[in-house]
Amino acid sequence: MRVPDLIAKKRDGHSLTEEEISFLIDNYTKGIIPDYQMSAWAMAVYFRGMDNRETRALTQAMIQSGETIDLSPIKGTIVDKHSTGGVGDTTTIVLAPLVAAAGVPVAKMSGRGLGHTGGTIDKLETIPGMRLDLATGKFIEQVNRIGICIVGQTGNLVPADKKLYALRDVTGTVESLPLIAASIMSKKLAAGAHAILLDVKTGSGAFMKTPEEALALAKVMVDIGQGLGHPTAALITDMDQPLGYAIGNALEVKEAIKTLQGKGPDDLTELCLTIGAHLLVLAKKTTNEEEAYQELKGLLHSGEAIDKLAQLIEAQGGNPQVVEDFDLLPKAPVLLPVVSDREGYVDKIDCYQVGHTAMLLGAGRATKEDRIDPAVGIQLCKKVGDYVNKGDVLAYIHAAQHEQGIRAKQAVLEAYRLSDHQPTKPPLVHSVLRG
Amino acid sequence: MRVPDLIAKKRDGHSLTEEEISFLIDNYTKGIIPDYQMSAWAMAVYFRGMDNRETRALTQAMIQSGETIDLSPIKGTIVDKHSTGGVGDTTTIVLAPLVAAAGVPVAKMSGRGLGHTGGTIDKLETIPGMRLDLATGKFIEQVNRIGICIVGQTGNLVPADKKLYALRDVTGTVESLPLIAASIMSKKLAAGAHAILLDVKTGSGAFMKTPEEALALAKVMVDIGQGLGHPTAALITDMDQPLGYAIGNALEVKEAIKTLQGKGPDDLTELCLTIGAHLLVLAKKTTNEEEAYQELKGLLHSGEAIDKLAQLIEAQGGNPQVVEDFDLLPKAPVLLPVVSDREGYVDKIDCYQVGHTAMLLGAGRATKEDRIDPAVGIQLCKKVGDYVNKGDVLAYIHAAQHEQGIRAKQAVLEAYRLSDHQPTKPPLVHSVLRG
Repeated sequence: MRVPDLIAKKRDGHSLTEEEISFLIDNYTKGIIPDYQMSAWAMAVYFRGMDNRETRALTQAMIQSGETIDLSPIKGTIVDKHSTGGVGDTTTIVLAPLVAAAGVPVAKMSGRGLGHTGGTIDKLETIPGMRLDLATGKFIEQVNRIGICIVGQTGNLVPADKKLYALRDVTGTVESLPLIAASIMSKKLAAGAHAILLDVKTGSGAFMKTPEEALALAKVMVDIGQGLGHPTAALITDMDQPLGYAIGNALEVKEAIKTLQGKGPDDLTELCLTIGAHLLVLAKKTTNEEEAYQELKGLLHSGEAIDKLAQLIEAQGGNPQVVEDFDLLPKAPVLLPVVSDREGYVDKIDCYQVGHTAMLLGAGRATKEDRIDPAVGIQLCKKVGDYVNKGDVLAYIHAAQHEQGIRAKQAVLEAYRLSDHQPTKPPLVHSVLRG
Repeated sequence: MRVPDLIAKKRDGHSLTEEEISFLIDNYTKGIIPDYQMSAWAMAVYFRGMDNRETRALTQAMIQSGETIDLSPIKGTIVDKHSTGGVGDTTTIVLAPLVAAAGVPVAKMSGRGLGHTGGTIDKLETIPGMRLDLATGKFIEQVNRIGICIVGQTGNLVPADKKLYALRDVTGTVESLPLIAASIMSKKLAAGAHAILLDVKTGSGAFMKTPEEALALAKVMVDIGQGLGHPTAALITDMDQPLGYAIGNALEVKEAIKTLQGKGPDDLTELCLTIGAHLLVLAKKTTNEEEAYQELKGLLHSGEAIDKLAQLIEAQGGNPQVVEDFDLLPKAPVLLPVVSDREGYVDKIDCYQVGHTAMLLGAGRATKEDRIDPAVGIQLCKKVGDYVNKGDVLAYIHAAQHEQGIRAKQAVLEAYRLSDHQPTKPPLVHSVLRG
């Protein structure tokens, strides 16, 4: 096989065979195929797309490029949830203990935040003492013992994706559905998931700006999962305003704790119960989503859900008292209110701008090398549909320095758009895609 | 300017500004922009094309990437002819002395052959003693003294093209009209031409397989030349069968000499007179192509054209006796006839196959590093429209070894397609594009 011929084949709109795709990925990972051929190929894929068979083959080839984790020593079906990334998206920290409390084993590898979106590992690290770098043996042992473990990604999982993503990032080839889908799915499957639930975000704070784009991506990913023998479903959910009220690592942990105590924001609670119900169905705990929803709701109010989080924290070296005493979480020295200069209904909150502002405060990373500040962030007080009087506090800025806080204050004020008319609230879940 | 943004801009179908294109080419040539970004950009150009303004800017940026030759010390308008490459395309060796004999200065830089197509420098090197590596000062002096000089490409002309072409060659991005056009035109203009006549070949032996493709390329090139202030015209000419009867370096020199003596093949003679007439018009020697054609025809028969070739050969260290004594040219040791095994009209000669066979005999190069054999090649005896009896000789193979010759014999036999019906001869010139 000659690489220029394979590039030209894709360029001319033909499908590559499984052998051809595996040849490309394998030799690229090994450094035999140079970056300049792979980037031209990626651009050809951008224009020509890939059919389902090709996308599955690409995912498979990427999985085989490195180590994979064998979760078969864990009893039960391991269902992994993946979110495409959002602002104030605290769902994993709520969902993991919630479904574990319902008896579904949770063996979760999570990532860190990048750009305007947050990451679960950064959030959990704000809990004093919490360790997220467990070895695979200990990880599996803990899941079998208490039904839940969350760790950062370890080992040499999907090196092809690391290399290809870094290349795509600098060659204008990120925005290709099959490449995005294969990147996400290869990491989930290499991490050992049996079944996968995808939370594909859409809106101003998401990578997919419209529900149509989000659905198209979801379809490709569901096809990959199903095609490779893993039950997969997807929810298209709203990220046109931040989820919940907290944006920032410790602030979101606090919000997750409240939600697990049955006292969380409506939208976050509702989304976690909905996703959780689908997880229970995928894990074959039940066949009825409505029943699962009610069961999970019960666990929030019975205290079993928050107890499971405390158990998780204790098992991983953290101080479980944090669920009772928020003073144990880091606090930012500067607190500034964002005050409305007019009255009206909140019509829109520019979700990207809020996420970006939180990142600039230090809650997130502009580049992978940046360090984050666990305490800083933004606590919203008003969301879309709420009525605001002039002088009302729209949000609070939690900053490390006064000057940074002032800049953030202005940016958040600008992110709010008020209107004289009450807007219709966006739906929380746009659509559901079952495998 | 960020390179990924420029790649994405082109990818999304927008035009790049002159500054953006010059930024890309300049920094790529300097090694600041890596290959992997340039290949992704080239693939985006493949899919999105370039408008005329962009293509001109690209050509300009490529010219500025290296040295340029100043031919202003030469009196008169320097018109360069460029052929997109063909099989048995001996036109330059006929045309250069022919138009020089008509008083138009010829200051020509020529290339070597690659693949199934030949190159003027390889052909002229078969003449004993001939030197084609003159320095620019000597080159200009000779044109002013005898009206003609032909040399190989020297100096650091258009380094951006060398680098970009090598990259395109291995990344499936050769076949892009704006990139091909800018590559050709930048080299012609950097070499100092005032006006340019393009001979764009079409047919089975050409890179452009159809007259439509050839015309599209010609249009882009003519627009570049005119847009940059250089009178430019193009002829779309036939390369569906080899031009003339000879394919191979010394064989073609012999044929060129005969043509300059008024005893050449009809098609080669006709094409040279037609192109020559357009050259004289572009050089402002005359405004009437028909008059020019007749004047040039006279020079073939008066002996002035062949005398000019002898003068050129002598000036560059070669033995001018070669125009009288073909025994001075290298001869292949093996001569094999290709005998027809049936009768009928020659309907088609697969031009690519004939050129490729000549290359395998050693007349051309598969890669730039290959050495050529000046003596070998193929001498056709029959062309499209000729009637052939069973047992007639279709062609002669001139080979270095018997076994190679046998293989070539079979390949050439297969390249001939006979028919019971007399075919219509293909037109020699498909169309003319004036700037």
